[in-house]
Amino acid sequence: MEKSLIDVEGAARALRQFAEERDWQQFHSPKNLVMALAGEVGELTEIFQWMTEADSHNAASMPKTAGAVRDELADVALYLIRLTDVLGVDLNAAIAAKLTSNAARYPIEVSRGISTKYDQLPKS
Amino acid sequence: MEKSLIDVEGAARALRQFAEERDWQQFHSPKNLVMALAGEVGELTEIFQWMTEADSHNAASMPKTAGAVRDELADVALYLIRLTDVLGVDLNAAIAAKLTSNAARYPIEVSRGISTKYDQLPKS
Amino acid sequence: MEKSLIDVEGAARALRQFAEERDWQQFHSPKNLVMALAGEVGELTEIFQWMTEADSHNAASMPKTAGAVRDELADVALYLIRLTDVLGVDLNAAIAAKLTSNAARYPIEVSRGISTKYDQLPKS
Amino acid sequence: MEKSLIDVEGAARALRQFAEERDWQQFHSPKNLVMALAGEVGELTEIFQWMTEADSHNAASMPKTAGAVRDELADVALYLIRLTDVLGVDLNAAIAAKLTSNAARYPIEVSRGISTKYDQLPKS
Repeated sequence: MEKSLIDVEGAARALRQFAEERDWQQFHSPKNLVMALAGEVGELTEIFQWMTEADSHNAASMPKTAGAVRDELADVALYLIRLTDVLGVDLNAAIAAKLTSNAARYPIEVSRGISTKYDQLPKS
Repeated sequence: MEKSLIDVEGAARALRQFAEERDWQQFHSPKNLVMALAGEVGELTEIFQWMTEADSHNAASMPKTAGAVRDELADVALYLIRLTDVLGVDLNAAIAAKLTSNAARYPIEVSRGISTKYDQLPKS
Repeated sequence: MEKSLIDVEGAARALRQFAEERDWQQFHSPKNLVMALAGEVGELTEIFQWMTEADSHNAASMPKTAGAVRDELADVALYLIRLTDVLGVDLNAAIAAKLTSNAARYPIEVSRGISTKYDQLPKS
Repeated sequence: MEKSLIDVEGAARALRQFAEERDWQQFHSPKNLVMALAGEVGELTEIFQWMTEADSHNAASMPKTAGAVRDELADVALYLIRLTDVLGVDLNAAIAAKLTSNAARYPIEVSRGISTKYDQLPKS
């Protein structure tokens, strides 16, 4: 089956094996993995907290932050994939559904150039 | 080039088009996208906050939470992919590097069955 | 004026002076402080991520975590106070309003012993 | 005993009674309360995610966001206070210790006007 939007099978399999080899499934409840994910997003946030928006565009190329940015993005991705795998969620299908719903919530003509949340947009 | 661990190109392209059609690139600085990612992880966390670890294993199948879990996982994934795309980071390469580093940090023989962080593990 | 629920004036004043002495007001926009707060909450979350609920009750007394718990709680409190101060929000008044609203949202008779969110509770 | 930096006793007592009246102590493990705190910080972050730093200074006075900002700051404060109370941590003492440690980590002469983290500052 083609995963046209996202395909995480390789990483999911690697993480599954990593956990099994270390007998870590006991720690990997979805509740715990959500907390681990939140912790990694916190670390990612710390890299950007004092940066201006303009400077943040260069965060992955500036020598001072490039390595940390890649590391934390990978950590976030890995816990997200592991969580999704443990929960048995098809991430490609979930993303497809969300993209469809977002397109309905944010019609181009009413949301162009504004960051207003969909429930506060004028009805199109 | 094969993306053996993760492939997000389809979703990244869809999000790029979505943002361009709405002239939203102006809002999508990495700093802002990190905040949006943190916000979605917060919503995901709220689903699990009063759940026991045992119940959390069924969060994606229980009718009361299944839809919300899929929605929030997709939101987290989408902001992570968009952020990675705007930063120009190769997520597959970042994940590969992190898996290698994790394998070195957590040797099987010393980390089996314990959740201790690598910097507090006995030297192998 | 009495601050009957919370009084953060001493800490707010200390943080104001700390920032002024270091010319840090330029970094302390509310947006940046919200990110710093989120980062510290991420560090707090990491302490608890692999802990069982039962063990978490002892997190502030177990030698392995006691110091880190106090440190991270203080960091979260300090950024919350600094953020509130820069925004000019009266935290005591905001808390008083929220407690009143929570009492109306969660009537004792319908919310006893259940963790259901107010908007999904049966109307009392 | 004077709480010279922060005094949360009134709010802690109100929250304790609120939880007891609803038999909610069973849900209020520190682990769960940390997740609830992270969820509220996520909601606070969402208010600020598309705002410029300049606009964020007015977030508590702009009609569009003022109410939400006060609400979320109160929610964050309430879960932090409840968590601290359940853990038995003296927040005033923890803050006092942290302010002392921060003063040592960030000597005025080496940290003035820069946002560098203490472990990357030149030794004074």
